[in-house]
Amino acid sequence: MPRPTKLEDATVDAWLSAHPEWSRAGEGASAGIGRSYTFPDFAAALAFVVRIGCLAERRDHHPDVELGWGRARLRWSTHDAAGVSQLDLDAAEASDARAP
Amino acid sequence: MPRPTKLEDATVDAWLSAHPEWSRAGEGASAGIGRSYTFPDFAAALAFVVRIGCLAERRDHHPDVELGWGRARLRWSTHDAAGVSQLDLDAAEASDARAP
Repeated sequence: MPRPTKLEDATVDAWLSAHPEWSRAGEGASAGIGRSYTFPDFAAALAFVVRIGCLAERRDHHPDVELGWGRARLRWSTHDAAGVSQLDLDAAEASDARAP
Repeated sequence: MPRPTKLEDATVDAWLSAHPEWSRAGEGASAGIGRSYTFPDFAAALAFVVRIGCLAERRDHHPDVELGWGRARLRWSTHDAAGVSQLDLDAAEASDARAP
């Protein structure tokens, strides 16, 4: 797999315009994109996190996750690119596809 | 189940002295106790979070969780008590018992 490269700001901004639930999250080398999801209870949020975890393992690309009662938050960033790469946009779209 | 009550600061401090990996985390009504754990990879951290999630469901007492590659962080607090209750100390000890 080629080393991921950091996307141009304009590319990320265009993607964010098309995906308004997502926003920039984190700064500098850990700059990424984040989104919060809500769920009816803890178990539903946990189940979503497990699905995202499996997705992350398949892609060998892993988010930062926050989990609480009825809520989960994902932050995708590419450490090797010190910013947002195409891997993150793709993973974010795959995450949304797994949300209830 | 009786409504949980907020523990005296001295009680929490004594528990923290005996459990030095834990520290106070959060303020005001969301004051709690937190601990970070490290793991060899993402899957191990996710597996721990799932175990903690099952523990939380059994107890009907749920932590805030942060999950990342090779790491997880738990924060236990008791919303109904606006602070740290005995439920949190018990859940923290149960969490440690499930750590690898």
